[in-house]
Amino acid sequence: MKKNVEVLIKEFREYVAQMKYYQEVSSLIGWDLRTGAPKKGIDNRTKVLSMIAGKSFEIETSDKMGEYINSLEDGEGVDAVTNACVKECKRNYEKNKKIPKDRFKEYIRLSSKSESVWEEAKHKNDFQMFKPYLEKVLEFQKEFIDYRGYEGNKYNTILDDYEIGMTVDKVDELFGELKKNLVPLVKDIKESGYEPKKFFDNEFDVKKQKEFCKYILKEIKYDFEAGRLDESVHPFTIGMNPGDVRVTTRFSPENFEGALFGTIHEGGHALYEQNVSAELVGTPLCSGTSSGIHESQSRFWENIIGRSKVFWSRYFKELTEYFPDQAKGYNLDDFYKGINKVNPSFIRVEADECTYNLHIMLRYELEKKLINNEIEVKDLPHIWNDKMEEYLGIRPKDDTEGVLQDVHWSGGMFGYFPTYALGNLYSAQIYNTILKEIPDFNDLVAKGSFDKIVEYLKDNIYRHGKLLKPNEIIKNISGEELSGKYLADYLQQKYKDIYNI
Amino acid sequence: MKKNVEVLIKEFREYVAQMKYYQEVSSLIGWDLRTGAPKKGIDNRTKVLSMIAGKSFEIETSDKMGEYINSLEDGEGVDAVTNACVKECKRNYEKNKKIPKDRFKEYIRLSSKSESVWEEAKHKNDFQMFKPYLEKVLEFQKEFIDYRGYEGNKYNTILDDYEIGMTVDKVDELFGELKKNLVPLVKDIKESGYEPKKFFDNEFDVKKQKEFCKYILKEIKYDFEAGRLDESVHPFTIGMNPGDVRVTTRFSPENFEGALFGTIHEGGHALYEQNVSAELVGTPLCSGTSSGIHESQSRFWENIIGRSKVFWSRYFKELTEYFPDQAKGYNLDDFYKGINKVNPSFIRVEADECTYNLHIMLRYELEKKLINNEIEVKDLPHIWNDKMEEYLGIRPKDDTEGVLQDVHWSGGMFGYFPTYALGNLYSAQIYNTILKEIPDFNDLVAKGSFDKIVEYLKDNIYRHGKLLKPNEIIKNISGEELSGKYLADYLQQKYKDIYNI
Repeated sequence: MKKNVEVLIKEFREYVAQMKYYQEVSSLIGWDLRTGAPKKGIDNRTKVLSMIAGKSFEIETSDKMGEYINSLEDGEGVDAVTNACVKECKRNYEKNKKIPKDRFKEYIRLSSKSESVWEEAKHKNDFQMFKPYLEKVLEFQKEFIDYRGYEGNKYNTILDDYEIGMTVDKVDELFGELKKNLVPLVKDIKESGYEPKKFFDNEFDVKKQKEFCKYILKEIKYDFEAGRLDESVHPFTIGMNPGDVRVTTRFSPENFEGALFGTIHEGGHALYEQNVSAELVGTPLCSGTSSGIHESQSRFWENIIGRSKVFWSRYFKELTEYFPDQAKGYNLDDFYKGINKVNPSFIRVEADECTYNLHIMLRYELEKKLINNEIEVKDLPHIWNDKMEEYLGIRPKDDTEGVLQDVHWSGGMFGYFPTYALGNLYSAQIYNTILKEIPDFNDLVAKGSFDKIVEYLKDNIYRHGKLLKPNEIIKNISGEELSGKYLADYLQQKYKDIYNI
Repeated sequence: MKKNVEVLIKEFREYVAQMKYYQEVSSLIGWDLRTGAPKKGIDNRTKVLSMIAGKSFEIETSDKMGEYINSLEDGEGVDAVTNACVKECKRNYEKNKKIPKDRFKEYIRLSSKSESVWEEAKHKNDFQMFKPYLEKVLEFQKEFIDYRGYEGNKYNTILDDYEIGMTVDKVDELFGELKKNLVPLVKDIKESGYEPKKFFDNEFDVKKQKEFCKYILKEIKYDFEAGRLDESVHPFTIGMNPGDVRVTTRFSPENFEGALFGTIHEGGHALYEQNVSAELVGTPLCSGTSSGIHESQSRFWENIIGRSKVFWSRYFKELTEYFPDQAKGYNLDDFYKGINKVNPSFIRVEADECTYNLHIMLRYELEKKLINNEIEVKDLPHIWNDKMEEYLGIRPKDDTEGVLQDVHWSGGMFGYFPTYALGNLYSAQIYNTILKEIPDFNDLVAKGSFDKIVEYLKDNIYRHGKLLKPNEIIKNISGEELSGKYLADYLQQKYKDIYNI
């Protein structure tokens, strides 16, 4: 006897809720490990985490899951949310089923080893040491793509893992337009000779830094009843459910700028997760829809709002009241220019808003070629350095400040880098629409009144979770596909003004 | 074909490790909920916790567990640790198997409701409101004892849950002797007319309180690499594994005394859990052996060491350096007498070292009679008040400061109260032996040199976890069964000296 569809849906929803609960546990353990778990307990906690992650994976790849997918996908009487859940489960199910288990296990072992070798190699500035591991990781990536299949370009398969629906053709077009604009802009800025002085080149009391960061988080509508701010070595946001989305920052007397803008950045990620619709709780849809759209929100709050003059026209006075000594000799205009200083530099995570995208393009171009056998791992260092010279006009003195700087490749995270720049592209395009939809946008920011802005983002992005795909989100908002021109225009306008070009 | 015993042991150990891992997750979630989890995430987290607790319960009560117990208990080739694990699992398995599932479920529902009714009734000082719930909870307790069976006295079954091997006959004898000593001692103290002045009747900066508490925790060998100190409304210790044993304290400017001695108390619990032998990790034996022995350690550190003059001969000077204003006009002798002030009062958790045991005896006598149908719930308030008058010479003005003060009964925790006083009895008996085994005990404490003392406790108590039962521990240490006389002697001597009786 065939089961009634309602019964089947109920069972399936309970089954995926279990998977989501295990993931919530993994997230909590992860948060705890990175915010002060006692070090002597870590070995045992790692075993616990591995058991819990295994339970979630068991559900994801179970025959039962396969049966639910077969019975429910696009079926009669299946509601839209459940159907989207089924499709989300199918993505993971198929991906995991196509890769032979023993190969996957070997890969997991390798990538964990590879990460620790990378760490040492970076520390010792020794690319040769890392090279054989990177080669093996890359071989696995290509092998997995062969199992999984691809359309058009091999790289599309892994790009789609992080940014569903995105393709190499589209990224090439977007990045092409952006690069055409950015390379000359950075050159013009460099040649302008102007060097803004930086308010943040100073020491700041850590306790007061924390107070100010918390204050700003509250101002931009981060809900402290549904989250908390802690400290960790690498800042992150972790959403366990919309009622518990935690952010972290790193504080030190010398780097208040990093702490403050890092906090706003994580705050943007957190606003997204805190505002996913309640009806998606306990489903795999209850999270941001893609890495790119997620990054668009962190960047929107960090850069477009957080590094705007109108934002600081509201908060600069308060900042100077928190830090009167450091504020001596600064006015709003100095401050604004200082936080937007463009400085072509070697390290991606320290890059300014303008040059950041060039760091990403370089990585994208390299990994796309690696996946398509157009270059070899051994050639990476010198191609990296050549591209740095071409795009940013500077050449790394060694591989630690060059090809060895990022953890991503060592752990097999190929396909992720482009989403950082896609996030910037999305954010500028969304900003362009918001200025039309909320004509008093600048007045609101100048008043520190963010309700209407958050409401707009919630309605159009946050609440949908994974129910809408990235291209649907951007089309619903702007009426068109993702385009390179909005970010190019935004950066041109902002930086030509600051640098008087 | 019968499985090889080594294979069976290996499988069983992996199976119970899973159970323990689930419990570690439950503990971490519990810690997080009580130390600052965002309130809007609690509903969902409760569902996660319930799933995880269910997984652990599933293993505990599974047919597979039953088979392991049958095949392994006292079997040939079964090592001592595994055999003790089997017996520990059997205790829980049999308890849970004998109670019908539907009755247990109904009881869980009732007790959660009953706890919230109790909270309101306490707040409103309305025993009548709580009475029907307490009656039902008590009926369930008696019903469960009937399913489970008992030897001698019905109360023995639930007493054994918290203090394995302990019986009503033994507790009656111990408490009888103690009461015979304590009631007149408290009377003599009251009649002495002496009222020590209290250093802690003052306000203290919370940040400095925390620093001092952390300092003292470190001094008594709490390992901050295997734990952390946080804040919570009700102080607690939670041991997840010996490498992660966390303590909490409540801080307020007005109650530094509570924070400091509460911290040392939890520190005693934590020393126990941090020092369980590594070979027991991942087994159900990896925890303190009973509530009474656990409490003996918190009390040993809080009272016997922490409220001794010799301890403060080492730390009083530093305390006055932390708090010079509050210290004006106090010398060590004043301070020592102040922290040992005896004050018959209504609330157990605020009681001093001397009267505390009388609060416990009262509760024990009442719950023993309730279980044995010798009194009824409706009679509790006035019997409670009569006994308070008999033991402490004071009569509660209402039920909020009388029978309604404790949460235990509302949640069905009958049989637990005696372990608090048993803890005091154990601690005094252990202390008596230590003074002989470590002849320079007082010199060591006076130097703040606790290594040898912790080493002794580790060797004789901590490292064994649940591998030794409470009576084995106390007999191994002192050469005799638990006795009432050591605590009576200790209290007589200490308080007659302070009150010059």
